[in-house]
Amino acid sequence: MTTRILHHFTLDPASRYARLVLGEKRIAFGEAIVRYWEPNPAFEALNPSGLTPVLVVGDLAERLVLCESHAIAGWAEDVVPDPPLLPRALQDRAEMRRLVQWFERKFDFEVNALLLHEKMEKRLLGLGSPDTNAVRAGREALRNHLRYMDTLLAERDWLACSRLTLADFAAAAHLSVYDYFAEVPWADFPACKTWYMKLKSRPCFRPLLSDRQPGMAPSSYYHDLDF
Amino acid sequence: MTTRILHHFTLDPASRYARLVLGEKRIAFGEAIVRYWEPNPAFEALNPSGLTPVLVVGDLAERLVLCESHAIAGWAEDVVPDPPLLPRALQDRAEMRRLVQWFERKFDFEVNALLLHEKMEKRLLGLGSPDTNAVRAGREALRNHLRYMDTLLAERDWLACSRLTLADFAAAAHLSVYDYFAEVPWADFPACKTWYMKLKSRPCFRPLLSDRQPGMAPSSYYHDLDF
Repeated sequence: MTTRILHHFTLDPASRYARLVLGEKRIAFGEAIVRYWEPNPAFEALNPSGLTPVLVVGDLAERLVLCESHAIAGWAEDVVPDPPLLPRALQDRAEMRRLVQWFERKFDFEVNALLLHEKMEKRLLGLGSPDTNAVRAGREALRNHLRYMDTLLAERDWLACSRLTLADFAAAAHLSVYDYFAEVPWADFPACKTWYMKLKSRPCFRPLLSDRQPGMAPSSYYHDLDF
Repeated sequence: MTTRILHHFTLDPASRYARLVLGEKRIAFGEAIVRYWEPNPAFEALNPSGLTPVLVVGDLAERLVLCESHAIAGWAEDVVPDPPLLPRALQDRAEMRRLVQWFERKFDFEVNALLLHEKMEKRLLGLGSPDTNAVRAGREALRNHLRYMDTLLAERDWLACSRLTLADFAAAAHLSVYDYFAEVPWADFPACKTWYMKLKSRPCFRPLLSDRQPGMAPSSYYHDLDF
């Protein structure tokens, strides 16, 4: 049997995206937690960028090292095409790719760089207490993104089209971290809430719901399927 | 005949990546230059993120809007599979995807955020003269990336494997902007230089070499195939 080890950090959105995609594809894997903000030569030997996640498939005799989300999600789609997470129609593929990149490029810059940095990274790195203005700006940016998602989800069953795609997992990976920190105002965005409830009840989501980062308690409803 | 219009900015690395991939696939397109740093409701109607590039295929009756680099490169590979820019072997695919993401995630954060911001964005936005320390840090980061690429290219014909892939165009798109600003110390990285000469002499590169941004003259050797 092929061994597979995912090197990741529990509250890292990119890592969560990989875990959700692998889970949905029913690709089993062992785990190694990477404290990515600390020097780690062994991990950098796997991925010279030093960034999570990394999936190692096989052993030293025949090893495939999949560095970061595109290599992992692309490989998962290549080797386990069913269920397909890349839609067939050109229009749907375009929309899915746009939205995956939206979270990597726009959401990361506008929300994570402020809110995730203040709420999580500063604590992990020992950089002191959150800056109130940065938290406020990050919350406002998060609301803008939720508002935009709500308009998309008012017209579609899933984020990119009528079927579940990688875009849903990219979005849910990010939002699930803010849900851990009780930062998602679900009540104000009903279409997002319905969509997130559907995702949260999928088997692939279960491992994420039992994540607990020492010193950072999750929101009281973080693991509830009915929130 | 289907019309195709690429909305892009000449010195934007993501836009250059799309132009190179479309050029290599011999997919003809018209151009609309987007000054992405200015408010532009018509462009935001095409791409709500406001980010370049965007390729519009067809007319209003049947229009496909491809927002940003993954949607454009993925579509190009889907509709014009030959020449393939996504390799077949799992190992090569993994390496290509890792490197494309390297430039989007690590190079962008470590180099563009400093050096491109100081050399180009500040001038476009009228934010004053470059900060000497930021320029120095950006140059040092660029050297680190070139050093890493040099070690890869010492062992391979192309960046990800023995064949030309999307990773080469992602890397060349970024470096070509710094080459415009005479910021690439080619002489110190011979394997990178050989690789870039090979790319620069391809037909897909020609349109980039005639780019001229008003008020920003290119390096004296920017358009030379022998530099």
